[in-house]
Amino acid sequence: MTIDLQSGTRPTGVDAAVDAARRVIDALVRSGDMTDADMAGITDRLHAVADDLESSAPPLDDRLVNMWRGDGMTRHDPVTGPENPIAPPVEYTAVDSHTIEAVTTLGLPYQGPPSCVHGGVSALILDHTLGVANGWAGVSGVTAELTIRYHELTPLFEPLTITARQVSVDGRKIRTTGEIKANGETCVSAEGLFIAKHPPRPR
Amino acid sequence: MTIDLQSGTRPTGVDAAVDAARRVIDALVRSGDMTDADMAGITDRLHAVADDLESSAPPLDDRLVNMWRGDGMTRHDPVTGPENPIAPPVEYTAVDSHTIEAVTTLGLPYQGPPSCVHGGVSALILDHTLGVANGWAGVSGVTAELTIRYHELTPLFEPLTITARQVSVDGRKIRTTGEIKANGETCVSAEGLFIAKHPPRPR
Repeated sequence: MTIDLQSGTRPTGVDAAVDAARRVIDALVRSGDMTDADMAGITDRLHAVADDLESSAPPLDDRLVNMWRGDGMTRHDPVTGPENPIAPPVEYTAVDSHTIEAVTTLGLPYQGPPSCVHGGVSALILDHTLGVANGWAGVSGVTAELTIRYHELTPLFEPLTITARQVSVDGRKIRTTGEIKANGETCVSAEGLFIAKHPPRPR
Repeated sequence: MTIDLQSGTRPTGVDAAVDAARRVIDALVRSGDMTDADMAGITDRLHAVADDLESSAPPLDDRLVNMWRGDGMTRHDPVTGPENPIAPPVEYTAVDSHTIEAVTTLGLPYQGPPSCVHGGVSALILDHTLGVANGWAGVSGVTAELTIRYHELTPLFEPLTITARQVSVDGRKIRTTGEIKANGETCVSAEGLFIAKHPPRPR
C-alpha cells in the first residue's frame, strides 16, 4: 500500500529541476579533480542558473509560509523533499497503522567510510523516519533524545530498507524505534524520545 | 589557530563548481513553485551540466581510490567536503589538543521545524565533528553509539558554534562529546562511543 505520507515527486516544475540538480551533485562528487571537464565553464553555468533562480525567488517570509501550508509541509525537507536536492529522496510506504518503510539506495554524496553510508547520514534519515512514523501513527512532536547504534557498516550503492514504528505514547512522551537494513541484516538501529509539541508555523 | 583539520576550499576547479552548485541547491529550495523562473529550461541546463560531468568522470573504482588517499580523505564528505555540494561546508579550528570548533550558518536546505535546523542534520554534523575531534586527538575509529539530546530548537540563518572534544580512550573504546550552540545557549548535545578500527581503504 502506497500512502499519502508525502506528496510524491511531480514530473515538471521545481521537482524536475531538483532531480537534475541531484545528478549534478552526484557527478561533482564522482568527478572530484579527476576530470577533463571544463570546470570553469561548469562553474559559470551553475552560477548563471543560481542567478536566474534567485532573481525570480519569492521573499523568504512568503516562502516560509508556503512551505508550511498544506502538502508544502512534506515537500522541502532534506530527507524526502522533492523540492530539496539534498534529499536522496526517501519515499515511504505504510506497513501497518504505526509502522512505515522505505527502500532507498544512496550514492557517493552520502559516503562516510569507504563505499559506506556516513553514520551521520544514517542518523539524519532515521531521525526523519521516526518523525514521519509518529505522524502516520497520529501523534507526532519534536525530537528530545535520539540514540543511534551502529551494528554493521551500511553499504552505498545497494538497496537499504529503512523502517520506523511508533512504540508508545505516554502523555506527551512518544517512543519510536527504527532501523536500516541491508541484505536482511540490521546495520543501524535507532530509539527516539519525542515530545508532542509543535513549533508555530509561519503565517 | 586554524589547523590542518581539512584541506580547505580551493578557488578554482571542482571546489568552485561545488560552491556554485550550493547556490543552485539553496535557490531551488528557496523558490519551490513560487517562481516565474523558466523551470523547464533550468532543468535542461542542469541535465546538460550533469551530462558533461558524467561523460568525463573517472571510473568509480579509480575515484574511490583517489578519495581515500592523502588530502582527498577530507575533501568529499557530506559535512566538510569542498568537493561535496551537500556539505554546508563546516570548517573546523582547533581549541586545544583534544577539542575542535566550527562556526557555521545553515540555510533552508537544512530545515526541520519552521526556520530551525533539522534534528537529523544536527545529528549528522555532530557525528562528523566528534569523529574529526577523535582524529585531531590522535585516536579515531568508527561510531558504535551516538546519543543526541535536543535542548532548544536550533535556528537557521544564525551563526552556530559546533564543538567536540575527545573525553577518554580506554583500550579500543573512545568517548567523545560535543554540542551545537546558538547565541551562547546549547541547542543540541551529543555523546559518542567510537571503536578504534578503520575499514580498509580502496586500492
